Amino acid sequence: MQIGLIGLGRMGGNIARRLIARGRHDVVVYGRNANEVETLGREGATAGSSLKDLVERLAAPRTIWVMLPAGPVTEDHVSELGDLLSSGDTIIDGGNTFWQDDIRRAAELREKGIHYVDVGTSGGVWGLERGYCMMIGGDKAIIDRLDPIFATLAPGIGQIPQTEGRDGRDPRVEQGYLHAGPSGAGHFVKMVHNGIEYGLMQAYAEGFDILKNANMDALPERHRFDLNVPDIAEVWRRGSVISSWLLDLTASALAKSEALETYSGFVDDSGEGRWTVNAAIDEAVSADVITAALYARFRSRKDHTFAEKVLSAMRHGFGGHTEPPSPEPVGQSKNHPTSS
Amino acid sequence: MQIGLIGLGRMGGNIARRLIARGRHDVVVYGRNANEVETLGREGATAGSSLKDLVERLAAPRTIWVMLPAGPVTEDHVSELGDLLSSGDTIIDGGNTFWQDDIRRAAELREKGIHYVDVGTSGGVWGLERGYCMMIGGDKAIIDRLDPIFATLAPGIGQIPQTEGRDGRDPRVEQGYLHAGPSGAGHFVKMVHNGIEYGLMQAYAEGFDILKNANMDALPERHRFDLNVPDIAEVWRRGSVISSWLLDLTASALAKSEALETYSGFVDDSGEGRWTVNAAIDEAVSADVITAALYARFRSRKDHTFAEKVLSAMRHGFGGHTEPPSPEPVGQSKNHPTSS
Amino acid sequence: MQIGLIGLGRMGGNIARRLIARGRHDVVVYGRNANEVETLGREGATAGSSLKDLVERLAAPRTIWVMLPAGPVTEDHVSELGDLLSSGDTIIDGGNTFWQDDIRRAAELREKGIHYVDVGTSGGVWGLERGYCMMIGGDKAIIDRLDPIFATLAPGIGQIPQTEGRDGRDPRVEQGYLHAGPSGAGHFVKMVHNGIEYGLMQAYAEGFDILKNANMDALPERHRFDLNVPDIAEVWRRGSVISSWLLDLTASALAKSEALETYSGFVDDSGEGRWTVNAAIDEAVSADVITAALYARFRSRKDHTFAEKVLSAMRHGFGGHTEPPSPEPVGQSKNHPTSS
Amino acid sequence: MQIGLIGLGRMGGNIARRLIARGRHDVVVYGRNANEVETLGREGATAGSSLKDLVERLAAPRTIWVMLPAGPVTEDHVSELGDLLSSGDTIIDGGNTFWQDDIRRAAELREKGIHYVDVGTSGGVWGLERGYCMMIGGDKAIIDRLDPIFATLAPGIGQIPQTEGRDGRDPRVEQGYLHAGPSGAGHFVKMVHNGIEYGLMQAYAEGFDILKNANMDALPERHRFDLNVPDIAEVWRRGSVISSWLLDLTASALAKSEALETYSGFVDDSGEGRWTVNAAIDEAVSADVITAALYARFRSRKDHTFAEKVLSAMRHGFGGHTEPPSPEPVGQSKNHPTSS
Repeated sequence: MQIGLIGLGRMGGNIARRLIARGRHDVVVYGRNANEVETLGREGATAGSSLKDLVERLAAPRTIWVMLPAGPVTEDHVSELGDLLSSGDTIIDGGNTFWQDDIRRAAELREKGIHYVDVGTSGGVWGLERGYCMMIGGDKAIIDRLDPIFATLAPGIGQIPQTEGRDGRDPRVEQGYLHAGPSGAGHFVKMVHNGIEYGLMQAYAEGFDILKNANMDALPERHRFDLNVPDIAEVWRRGSVISSWLLDLTASALAKSEALETYSGFVDDSGEGRWTVNAAIDEAVSADVITAALYARFRSRKDHTFAEKVLSAMRHGFGGHTEPPSPEPVGQSKNHPTSS
Repeated sequence: MQIGLIGLGRMGGNIARRLIARGRHDVVVYGRNANEVETLGREGATAGSSLKDLVERLAAPRTIWVMLPAGPVTEDHVSELGDLLSSGDTIIDGGNTFWQDDIRRAAELREKGIHYVDVGTSGGVWGLERGYCMMIGGDKAIIDRLDPIFATLAPGIGQIPQTEGRDGRDPRVEQGYLHAGPSGAGHFVKMVHNGIEYGLMQAYAEGFDILKNANMDALPERHRFDLNVPDIAEVWRRGSVISSWLLDLTASALAKSEALETYSGFVDDSGEGRWTVNAAIDEAVSADVITAALYARFRSRKDHTFAEKVLSAMRHGFGGHTEPPSPEPVGQSKNHPTSS
Repeated sequence: MQIGLIGLGRMGGNIARRLIARGRHDVVVYGRNANEVETLGREGATAGSSLKDLVERLAAPRTIWVMLPAGPVTEDHVSELGDLLSSGDTIIDGGNTFWQDDIRRAAELREKGIHYVDVGTSGGVWGLERGYCMMIGGDKAIIDRLDPIFATLAPGIGQIPQTEGRDGRDPRVEQGYLHAGPSGAGHFVKMVHNGIEYGLMQAYAEGFDILKNANMDALPERHRFDLNVPDIAEVWRRGSVISSWLLDLTASALAKSEALETYSGFVDDSGEGRWTVNAAIDEAVSADVITAALYARFRSRKDHTFAEKVLSAMRHGFGGHTEPPSPEPVGQSKNHPTSS
Repeated sequence: MQIGLIGLGRMGGNIARRLIARGRHDVVVYGRNANEVETLGREGATAGSSLKDLVERLAAPRTIWVMLPAGPVTEDHVSELGDLLSSGDTIIDGGNTFWQDDIRRAAELREKGIHYVDVGTSGGVWGLERGYCMMIGGDKAIIDRLDPIFATLAPGIGQIPQTEGRDGRDPRVEQGYLHAGPSGAGHFVKMVHNGIEYGLMQAYAEGFDILKNANMDALPERHRFDLNVPDIAEVWRRGSVISSWLLDLTASALAKSEALETYSGFVDDSGEGRWTVNAAIDEAVSADVITAALYARFRSRKDHTFAEKVLSAMRHGFGGHTEPPSPEPVGQSKNHPTSS
């Protein structure tokens, strides 16, 4: 079927490619980067020269997939599309939008007769080949009409074993896409997905850190190990309880560079982890692990925190401790009888 | 090759079966449960009637795999075997022994010329079919000699894609087993594996809890979702960043019972999580997520903690709050101007 | 000076009393509880029979202190007062209102010429005698005009030693009240105060829990202690680094009942802890301790969480573990070689 | 009474001074620093020239207080004293020794008839003036005999209000010292004291960090506050629920330097926090806050962790994210539609 696609970054470009290559869909694209538009044009997409031009190239009822950075950029484009589109048309937001924004937008657009579908899209740069896992929010009738799009983007059953006891359940789920609920539900589920992702990543990261430091000088010599971290990551992929796709990626990175020296250790966060914690708090659910993972990222982006200086000031206050101006080698700390 | 196997529980029995069925190894078994010994006898094992009998049925140099609950049970059996075996024989501890016990035992047995190999064995009840991921500690020469045993138990490459950039690295790792280092290294790596496992499990558990409670009354009605948790677990298995074997198991459990009502919510821990945290502390590594996962299990096993009563007592002390003797419905809490 | 006071609960009643007794202020009170109105009338307050009546009893420019549960109750009263009052009058919200509500309200009331002052009020049921610590947000001119009220409610310098190096700083701070900034700043600072309070309380609670369980059967006999928890709380009040008012309250509760058996262990939260965590996240500040304290309260209010059942389901999935339907004695867990 | 004192650092020197000045005790001192020995000699102590000399200057039954850094230094001195002393003599370890070492030492010394008393000593550099809070482990008869020493060092009741309901309880507790139990109990209680201290300090530190960052650019302008952190610390000392001695010290440091710029933010730990967490784990007590406080210190001492690089490597693996080599300004993160 025909679909417009706005935003041709790492995700959007590959979504266009998969729609064209696997689904023979008629894809009209528009993005800020003229090179990328042109490239996709050569790969079978119709190139739009502006948002307006893209809209005009689509037959009613139009469907436009917006794949842009969440926040103001997406907001502006959805808003502009709301003015350009007509009753019966549909806007899909496939980015990582905050789910409460979806609820608001859907209500605003509904007044114009425009449908709004929020799609949490997982798969990253691998989606072109591996397919995208999609969590979808919006009206059932519209989502059913868009089924050919979702079916093409989804990974399909592939070689992943089927789960027993799913007879009678929605078969689309096994293809890799889910109508999660009304507007906002798609991004809500995707948000929790990313919150879990933070926790999983941090669990692996801590484990590898413990392995890496198992040979530190501060340990008694008989309790030290020089461990081969890349080999450990690899062996865990095979038959262990903790095998996962994230572990596959880690093993791959470690095989290239045991010390991961090309990474600074500065770790960004992209919003969903924060919103997941906010949701947990609204529900009075204890989300210790997801929150700790988020905070570890916050901390990774700072040289030192004011909190740490407050700690040093207190220690100086009660014990006369003078924290060293530059860090000593880390590890087993000396014991001071003056500590309190 | 010939091997003795002591301990025929959920893990030991299946290890014997895999050795017999896939490796045509000559397996002599002994266990407390006579039925299980007899059953394995019918499946091709040689049945030992006692520890001593099992030892006598093996030709020197003997190899005996101990697969018993870690702690006193394993300790007693290893100790007794140390008396029954001779120089050149080998004891393998395949359970979840504390790695410092391995170092001690290896040193003690070395004085008698007996070899000791510690094997962290992951795979659970699925190992018979899926193979076991093994992390091995001990002397290279002995571990090389035992290679046929490990090769049979390991999953092999199977359909798991190979990691790029591993040329020149130990090929056994891709088969699913690893010589991690000297005595203790096998169980040390397995301990961290289980620590990570705790963190991963808790990350998923928190995420599903947030999904489950997304429809709670305390939320504003427009912000509530009735989510299909089994379908969400299933869809995440397919193309998402958080796909993993633990998620497969969760999806399977949820497909059988959406509310998981057969589980009490009482969650045991088996030692490795505690030791992982101890190791992190010895290394001055922040293991926030693994520790939080461990503490969530501790808390799950209690009705109420003394800590919570101390909190209530303080709140009563400064604010006159009387905590209700039985819980109110949970969620958005009322605000009291008296709170402090 | 003359002031109206609405809300005569544990905090409001005592605020009226302190204003009358210590400041000879002319206090007009109104509350839902007629008995309390009458009682305060006998103690020197003027009794209002309704919100309208209270307003009419005050001379312009009027000042009304609202001391009600934060949330809808306060919101409704402030809104109603906005209709009853006139340009030049002032509303003080002394409860635990969310600071963003203050900012909104102040802007709304400003359009009518009505001043709005937010006061975070700490001191609990002890404030009558001990005085209230106040964190105040709003316009300087108004707050200066209300100084006699704040000066009366504040504890004053008393016997608390002065901090060196404060020459030239605002002397009101040493009396126990602070103009923190524009509207919302008072409740923002009070919110963080309460967030810290959660963390402090939890730190003590965990410590006492560790002391209490130091004699548990699961510990090796030579490592057990029967500790006198009330005496420990008391001794720490005297010369130790961790002496505090919260510890004083704890020592008092433990002196009455060593096991705190009148408390269920169900611990409420009143909003500020949640908002503090939200603020930390907005600022990308890692608030591990405050958040953990909040989550401990969430968990205290549940029998079992869905998260815990998910953990049990996974453990059953990979290890065949069947979590017991009712808790075993807690502590050092048995080790199972099947754990993964 | 007569007492020997070994170790004249920030704690030991002041302990000697307090014993001489307030108790008229006959104090024989020895320390590595000859200047300090000499100074104390001028202040009324008897100067010992060596460990042996100190022992010889004491009349049997001798009492020697060891006030040295915990770990090897204390261990060596206690061991050497064990050789120099005779049956009936007593060694007091007033440092921050690990309680299990106390149990071992007490048993070893008991065989020679030498008594061993472990004293957890809180008060820091302020103890000379303020007195020391002491938690004592060992045999009752010996501790009773040493009462004059403890009574002198303790703060006494002073101006701290008495707790109701303590009639019939040990009156020494209100003086500020406690016989906690058998050998090890003193340092066990002191260890938990310090664990709580870590949690309290971190709670304040996080709160002040949230206040400090309330004006960050990443926040919406209407939600920013420029807060006076030193004034807030000061006002909380007066009538608030979170007033404490640690807050007094913080207010004092902030009055001197609002940004605390003389502190690097590198925060040491001295062992007791680690041991407290280990004890919590042995007891299956969830110590979320104390542990988080410990981990925050670990993290403060590192530039970047390997864990953080693993996170970046994963993010690069699934999303093509390239973490910047040097930190961007922190705060509200941009949202990337490629994040997963």
